[in-house]
Amino acid sequence: MDNSKSQVVGQSYIRCLIDKTNEDWINLAIANPLEILLDHAHCERKAAGVALQLMFRYVSEPGLSEVLSPLAREELEHFERVLSILNARGKKLQKLESPPYAGILVKNIRKDEPLRMLDSFLVAGLIEARSHERMKLLSIHSPDVELSNLYADLLKSEARHFGIYWKLADERFERNTINLRLEELAKVESDALVKMHHEPRMHS
Amino acid sequence: MDNSKSQVVGQSYIRCLIDKTNEDWINLAIANPLEILLDHAHCERKAAGVALQLMFRYVSEPGLSEVLSPLAREELEHFERVLSILNARGKKLQKLESPPYAGILVKNIRKDEPLRMLDSFLVAGLIEARSHERMKLLSIHSPDVELSNLYADLLKSEARHFGIYWKLADERFERNTINLRLEELAKVESDALVKMHHEPRMHS
Repeated sequence: MDNSKSQVVGQSYIRCLIDKTNEDWINLAIANPLEILLDHAHCERKAAGVALQLMFRYVSEPGLSEVLSPLAREELEHFERVLSILNARGKKLQKLESPPYAGILVKNIRKDEPLRMLDSFLVAGLIEARSHERMKLLSIHSPDVELSNLYADLLKSEARHFGIYWKLADERFERNTINLRLEELAKVESDALVKMHHEPRMHS
Repeated sequence: MDNSKSQVVGQSYIRCLIDKTNEDWINLAIANPLEILLDHAHCERKAAGVALQLMFRYVSEPGLSEVLSPLAREELEHFERVLSILNARGKKLQKLESPPYAGILVKNIRKDEPLRMLDSFLVAGLIEARSHERMKLLSIHSPDVELSNLYADLLKSEARHFGIYWKLADERFERNTINLRLEELAKVESDALVKMHHEPRMHS
């Protein structure tokens, strides 16, 4: 698949999100910019961790490390960029209680291969798609110019990430199998966000 | 500590290796260039994993992620570079049985904090120091110009990595405590290599 085609698939992948983020989340996020920024730093760090974990688990899978290693590097680059803004604003990197979101999705990854691999790609892709949707909202609604520009900037490369996970699935599984499972997992994903987490998070 | 000082510390850190690599290892490595290259790819991947693991474990430790994230990115960049040479030579990334080396070192990391942190930095640093020593040998002795140049190139940045781990320790622990423990762990490290592993590995 060439790059342009991968981008088109990526675009349609965003449309896989069943429920759009509502205004309550936007209001909570905009009212707590530094907490969201801190949580976003953790998201970038964790996204790098997911890519590396898949590289470790499927170490002999042809063509996997070739795309996940640069993806992990890019996530770390974003992490460092967010961290430097946090530091400049006197906010330290500290632990944040995670919302149940990622845990719910991970629990839905089936245990047996190759289903585990397919689900892992789709869950990682769905999280990237949701991050992308919410970063776009932050870039539009944030009154803080530095943060608005940051999210707009990060978006550009994040847009490729769910395309990468989609492509990893598409190269290894039947399109029909992928679509059916994606629909199920997208339902889990949207349901995980129905009851908004009480603290401001990227995936609350 | 400024960069130049960190480099000096880094240089002296190489001298912490108690036993130098002997000719038997060099001969085995030079006779099996692709297997060593493949193992080296795994080493770079694992080194990125170690940095990320420390970032996850000590997420609130000030100044840690700031240096380990770029280090992880650099290891991944090296991994990709080695992987592309492997691919170009028709060798796939596949699992290799690991020699006992890293496992022996990790077993010597004490369980209680802050000792665990100190030992983790020193063990990571010692592995970097040994990799550096052996990559230098490969760059000198390899008759394959592409590989010789590769190792010589990677060396330049690897030289900074044990300096980074040293500095992480030096900023948080008494110099005397570090030196005493480093001496003990360096003994473990050299002893782990006394009986050469039967297969060609970076740390056999």
